[in-house]
Amino acid sequence: MSDPQRPEERGAGAQDALGRSVDALLRVRYSETDQMGIVYHAHYLVWFEIGRTEWCRAAGLPYAGMEEAGMFIPVTRVTCSFRGRPRYDDAITVRTVMVELSRRGCEFGYEVFGPDGGLLAEGSTRHVFTDPTGRARSAPAEIVAGLKAFRDSGSD
Amino acid sequence: MSDPQRPEERGAGAQDALGRSVDALLRVRYSETDQMGIVYHAHYLVWFEIGRTEWCRAAGLPYAGMEEAGMFIPVTRVTCSFRGRPRYDDAITVRTVMVELSRRGCEFGYEVFGPDGGLLAEGSTRHVFTDPTGRARSAPAEIVAGLKAFRDSGSD
Amino acid sequence: MSDPQRPEERGAGAQDALGRSVDALLRVRYSETDQMGIVYHAHYLVWFEIGRTEWCRAAGLPYAGMEEAGMFIPVTRVTCSFRGRPRYDDAITVRTVMVELSRRGCEFGYEVFGPDGGLLAEGSTRHVFTDPTGRARSAPAEIVAGLKAFRDSGSD
Amino acid sequence: MSDPQRPEERGAGAQDALGRSVDALLRVRYSETDQMGIVYHAHYLVWFEIGRTEWCRAAGLPYAGMEEAGMFIPVTRVTCSFRGRPRYDDAITVRTVMVELSRRGCEFGYEVFGPDGGLLAEGSTRHVFTDPTGRARSAPAEIVAGLKAFRDSGSD
Repeated sequence: MSDPQRPEERGAGAQDALGRSVDALLRVRYSETDQMGIVYHAHYLVWFEIGRTEWCRAAGLPYAGMEEAGMFIPVTRVTCSFRGRPRYDDAITVRTVMVELSRRGCEFGYEVFGPDGGLLAEGSTRHVFTDPTGRARSAPAEIVAGLKAFRDSGSD
Repeated sequence: MSDPQRPEERGAGAQDALGRSVDALLRVRYSETDQMGIVYHAHYLVWFEIGRTEWCRAAGLPYAGMEEAGMFIPVTRVTCSFRGRPRYDDAITVRTVMVELSRRGCEFGYEVFGPDGGLLAEGSTRHVFTDPTGRARSAPAEIVAGLKAFRDSGSD
Repeated sequence: MSDPQRPEERGAGAQDALGRSVDALLRVRYSETDQMGIVYHAHYLVWFEIGRTEWCRAAGLPYAGMEEAGMFIPVTRVTCSFRGRPRYDDAITVRTVMVELSRRGCEFGYEVFGPDGGLLAEGSTRHVFTDPTGRARSAPAEIVAGLKAFRDSGSD
Repeated sequence: MSDPQRPEERGAGAQDALGRSVDALLRVRYSETDQMGIVYHAHYLVWFEIGRTEWCRAAGLPYAGMEEAGMFIPVTRVTCSFRGRPRYDDAITVRTVMVELSRRGCEFGYEVFGPDGGLLAEGSTRHVFTDPTGRARSAPAEIVAGLKAFRDSGSD
């Protein structure tokens, strides 16, 4: 892991039962620590957001573009289990998969790894597709198809 | 709700099957909004932290004092379901109960209400008791007794 | 300071050469600490935002309402000097004055005090009035008049 | 800028009157936006922190290591002028120089650039060297020498 802030897609081997995974790499910011000397737990949710941002980018459907087209993907439920104690400047990997997908919404799953590859946290976020005012709205069929194609890609 | 930033304990009526609840009142900060125009979801975890801080204070066992005595209570798991769209400067109520308690750890439950009393979110956090280095450690019996006495108080 | 999260206006004595000041009271959140065991410095800017929110509310011109009317007040410059080491759960007072005001923008000044009244920080923010797209725009005369009247109030 | 999250040192051309500069590259997180649709201003201070972290790493003196050796570098003063309106997912460059250095403290200067190279913000942070309790303490001569050597490197 020579280049810890470079988000990158994992190779074909990343495909598994949960579908194509994408890794985002980041470093723990000083601002993300708390007085226990470790990362304040709420920041994992921000890391999950970075994870799904990179997953969508890797899928060829950057989230910023989806919002510009009027499609929003707010979080409706989050879970996270914390298993490690990451510290300032640690190189972190966020591995993201898309667990569920329909025209109404989707669910992402996440694993967070530390510099030595140890599991720091795992969690999930559920989302609905909405218009800019927050009203539920079916995603365009071509976007769902694009996300699905990427999720299922990479296997032989 | 004439005074939305004042944390306060609810009256005796607050006691229910889950034990004594404590309300913390706050206002949505501009910094807590995102480009959807609503509160960014990770901030609810900070509000939960404020909720359990006020619960412990109401129990007569301020969390800052517990840390000074060498007892830390890190979060090991969080869940949150988001049901509303709070906006800047909204008056928010965080209602906190202690769902489980043992010498090894505890679980808090939370409901977040908006200015009109509507439910914005509900969630939970699980915690273990540790020493300053993060090693699991049984809580002193008198602290567990104090928390339990408060949790069970207020009923007839 | 029996009620540290209640924002409140100071009495008439608060009027001075810089004009009417308004105090906002808050408690340090756990999330605001860092691994030095004190408040991470960027959070003071959030506290300044709370300070000017309460100043505008006390002036009878809540900022949320100004935005709904299409008038935005982004920050164009900030300065802050840090003189103390506030800790988790400390009761904090943010004292805000309006230093300058014209139809094009304004400047606020801030002093931040700790539980014992010691000065923790002082700073300033400059703002321009804009439309929702960020274009400079003169503030309506009645709003400028209202802010000015409040700033100059309280003196004999 | 094909790889926006990779922090990297600029080439020899970066040396100028202010000394060696180091660029950190990042992307705007969704969590960093506010309801104006742009980056909330306090996050620039976090970006400055990333900038000086990468400057110290490039100098061969990672800040995490300095803290482990008992030397802390808290911020005593910050200034920032905001000139742009960065948006979610924008690729951002933070260019950092060390403006002043003595055994008692130092000052960093920052320029923040957007995806098209436009200046988004410029600012500065002053620091003192302290022990873990916050008491002023002269920096070890070899650390000051190392920082100074890097600052002055790259010129002909």
